[in-house]
Amino acid sequence: MHRRDLIKLGAATLATGLQPALATAAATAPSSAAIEQWGLFELSLPGPSTGNPFKDVTLIARFTLEHRTVQVTGFYDGDGTYRIRFMPDAPGHWTYQTSSSAPQLANKSGAFTCTPPTTPGNHGPVTIAHEFHFQYSDGTPYFPFGTTAYAYLFTAEENAKHSLEGMRQARFNKTRICVLPKPLGDKEKQLLPFPRSGTGASAVNDLTRFNPAYFQLLEKRLLDLQKANIEADLILFHPYDGWGYKAMPPDSDDFYLRYAIARLSAFRNVWWSIANEYDLVKTKTMHDWDRFFRITVAEDPYSHLRSIHNSGPIYDNTKSWVTHASLQRADFENSAERRTAWRKPILYDELQYEGDVDRRWGNLSAEEMTRRFWLALINGAYATHGEVFISETGESSWSDAGRLRGESAPRIAFLRALIEKITPVGLTKVDNAYYLSAGTPNQLLLYYFDYHRPARYDFPLPTTANFSATLIDPYNMTTTPVPGTFSGKSRIALTSKPYQAIVFQKVSDNHNKSTEAARPEVLD
Amino acid sequence: MHRRDLIKLGAATLATGLQPALATAAATAPSSAAIEQWGLFELSLPGPSTGNPFKDVTLIARFTLEHRTVQVTGFYDGDGTYRIRFMPDAPGHWTYQTSSSAPQLANKSGAFTCTPPTTPGNHGPVTIAHEFHFQYSDGTPYFPFGTTAYAYLFTAEENAKHSLEGMRQARFNKTRICVLPKPLGDKEKQLLPFPRSGTGASAVNDLTRFNPAYFQLLEKRLLDLQKANIEADLILFHPYDGWGYKAMPPDSDDFYLRYAIARLSAFRNVWWSIANEYDLVKTKTMHDWDRFFRITVAEDPYSHLRSIHNSGPIYDNTKSWVTHASLQRADFENSAERRTAWRKPILYDELQYEGDVDRRWGNLSAEEMTRRFWLALINGAYATHGEVFISETGESSWSDAGRLRGESAPRIAFLRALIEKITPVGLTKVDNAYYLSAGTPNQLLLYYFDYHRPARYDFPLPTTANFSATLIDPYNMTTTPVPGTFSGKSRIALTSKPYQAIVFQKVSDNHNKSTEAARPEVLD
Repeated sequence: MHRRDLIKLGAATLATGLQPALATAAATAPSSAAIEQWGLFELSLPGPSTGNPFKDVTLIARFTLEHRTVQVTGFYDGDGTYRIRFMPDAPGHWTYQTSSSAPQLANKSGAFTCTPPTTPGNHGPVTIAHEFHFQYSDGTPYFPFGTTAYAYLFTAEENAKHSLEGMRQARFNKTRICVLPKPLGDKEKQLLPFPRSGTGASAVNDLTRFNPAYFQLLEKRLLDLQKANIEADLILFHPYDGWGYKAMPPDSDDFYLRYAIARLSAFRNVWWSIANEYDLVKTKTMHDWDRFFRITVAEDPYSHLRSIHNSGPIYDNTKSWVTHASLQRADFENSAERRTAWRKPILYDELQYEGDVDRRWGNLSAEEMTRRFWLALINGAYATHGEVFISETGESSWSDAGRLRGESAPRIAFLRALIEKITPVGLTKVDNAYYLSAGTPNQLLLYYFDYHRPARYDFPLPTTANFSATLIDPYNMTTTPVPGTFSGKSRIALTSKPYQAIVFQKVSDNHNKSTEAARPEVLD
Repeated sequence: MHRRDLIKLGAATLATGLQPALATAAATAPSSAAIEQWGLFELSLPGPSTGNPFKDVTLIARFTLEHRTVQVTGFYDGDGTYRIRFMPDAPGHWTYQTSSSAPQLANKSGAFTCTPPTTPGNHGPVTIAHEFHFQYSDGTPYFPFGTTAYAYLFTAEENAKHSLEGMRQARFNKTRICVLPKPLGDKEKQLLPFPRSGTGASAVNDLTRFNPAYFQLLEKRLLDLQKANIEADLILFHPYDGWGYKAMPPDSDDFYLRYAIARLSAFRNVWWSIANEYDLVKTKTMHDWDRFFRITVAEDPYSHLRSIHNSGPIYDNTKSWVTHASLQRADFENSAERRTAWRKPILYDELQYEGDVDRRWGNLSAEEMTRRFWLALINGAYATHGEVFISETGESSWSDAGRLRGESAPRIAFLRALIEKITPVGLTKVDNAYYLSAGTPNQLLLYYFDYHRPARYDFPLPTTANFSATLIDPYNMTTTPVPGTFSGKSRIALTSKPYQAIVFQKVSDNHNKSTEAARPEVLD
């Protein structure tokens, strides 16, 4: 544990193992404490442990910087300990004061200094930018190249370790993970978010209380992701249930949702995915999903990104609380239409999985997964990786959290590096282009030929600039510069292989440009 | 020239080269002449050569077998020679008598004996069978595995030779070919169907007469196809024009159409494709296309198959004169819907071309072409091959007529051999199957996994029969029997490769069948 981490966590101590995972500030934090921007300040307070502290005790704090005050909800973490977490979004001298129904917790005040970020990779939370794209809060471009690890937060330590290591190596910068547990092996032995008594069919959930240890483990894992610069697309509800959590009464749903937001929203790498395959949770209606969005908007002081993921019918992404679309679809050709309808970024968060299982969604080749990523990007959208291979030994598969065994991940990392190199803002599909292409007008043009393999092509480049050209083999991960620069209609020899690409990047203005414009493309 | 051919052509002599290509019977055919069923009887008559014999002279003949009379239109073949061609569709003693506006041609009568077919491969014309499929007139199954050779009928001898040889080797049994010429190199030097005077912009067509040599060449080539057991899907109109033929007045269109039908309908391997890319012939309206169909129905005594091929919008294939759909599309997944709407067989006659040219339609890989054939077949439809490679020497490309250079053709022949082996009637898609599959209930089940590559799958076989299983690698053209027989839900290990198939064929009834039915497939 480095000093830097301690500062980020609120100048406090970090417990290990399944003990409270996060730093705890003294009951009144020293006014000299320094928290970096988008770091996590945590105030720990002793309070009542009798009755049901989760339900009976209210606790908030108001954090103030100059003219601005942010109200944050605290939570009970068990053993008589209450916590308030806060992510300061601007440097300066912050003060705070608590309010509570418990006198022991009320009127605690303090202050801390927020400094500019010093942790490498701390660019703040990811936000929407340029209408259809993303960036970090400090303006650094962010292009989501994510994967799927549903059980990462609550799986065995070994699986989580493999998963994190795999994500690091593959340079994934986002992952979709469930907050509520999925059954993994013997579900009677799993750590659970709610107390549960009895076994088998007679087991009973106590939905009026939480199991802090569950959330503490989750937070430790979430922090590991943050350190690896991986955004956590937290799935709040899902249909893969083993204990009745998908069919809780509305009051319990809301109670859980508010608790999760109180605990987790101060982590800068959090995104909210209201549900995975929401339409497969048959016990809930569209009113429930809308209510969860409303609660999330109201309770999250930082407005982390919000979406909801479908299996069949797509949620109405025009609703104001949706920040971006999170689709299970592979019809990338409809992206332009969707962008126009929703005016929001589009993530194809499930486009099926690389793997070899017998379900239709679970046996793409690495080539097809790579192709789908390219198709998503060239259509002005983004894609998310997933992988499910049969393990004869019963080992956890990557998309629950485990070892990465497929071969598309390095190709996706290659694509990420390419995009990060060629554009600060992301791609927009070129309308009516003869072959699939995207870019930035007069600056950048990326063609992806998909199954087409013309031996040569007359590229209709703008005449106003000179462009470099680089051939790209997306699967073999090679880039081959084409000698010379190009302007206007330019014939370039291509390979006879399918699934190739070429990128044109502006190198200079063309002051000697001919008066003849590039011939419009002929559409067949 | 074998004796057999002479019989087929009407017990007459066959001229060579560009001389009249077909056999000519004596003015009155000897009553002892024997013609095999679906062979071509031709009556040649000397007649007036002054004025415009193409327009001025009417000539028909009535052929009678027992109670039935078939009226056939004759045509002027130049040099004072008139011909009447007839394809007898039943064995027996046929008599005939002519009528004509020219006394010289009128009231000629004769007889011939029609014998059962003796020429190997003569199964008669192809007809519709089993609603969505085809068969020869003698009941022999026929599954169209065609290619495209637009200029085959009028290209240089060398190209036609390569084309025919290529089709033979690749076992194509159908080809799409244009009746009207396409410009090939120096269009001033091409043999043309209508007399043309002058050159360049001042050239003038005489649309009131035909150039018999053009049609004689065409018929020689058509006969070569017939000998190779290749159906000729004759394209009567097309937009690839160099001389004004796509913009003739309606009277000239009809005059040409009737002449072509009079000359060509007695060839048993003829299909009528009213047009290629009809919607790109901007000078014609839907009324014109409908009229051409009506004329074809009225003038063709044999009711050869009739279709019309689109570029964009699909013709209304519910119209009664359409025998089957001839589509330019690659959305095979809509085939079931189309079958239900049209109640006719569906041929995807252009699903793009294998090749490397710079047009989107002309640069599929052999893998993708092979895949598209499989997708068409598994969806209960059929597909047509095409190929366009850039030739640095300007050599004609296969789809005009030339050498076969691609690598999909042997894979298509492999698929043809498989289909011919496993079914006498053709494939019907299985509704709601978990993976793409087609077959015949309780007899045959063919799965094609497309891009899916499950390591194993629980196949939901009927419990009423025992099935053999054979793994198929469509691209490497291998078949691998799976040991044992299978009934009911059967787990079979598959390869981890995409684009594989497996076929289950009934080997026996299952009298010991368990009372437990195969578990219904779970749909995701």
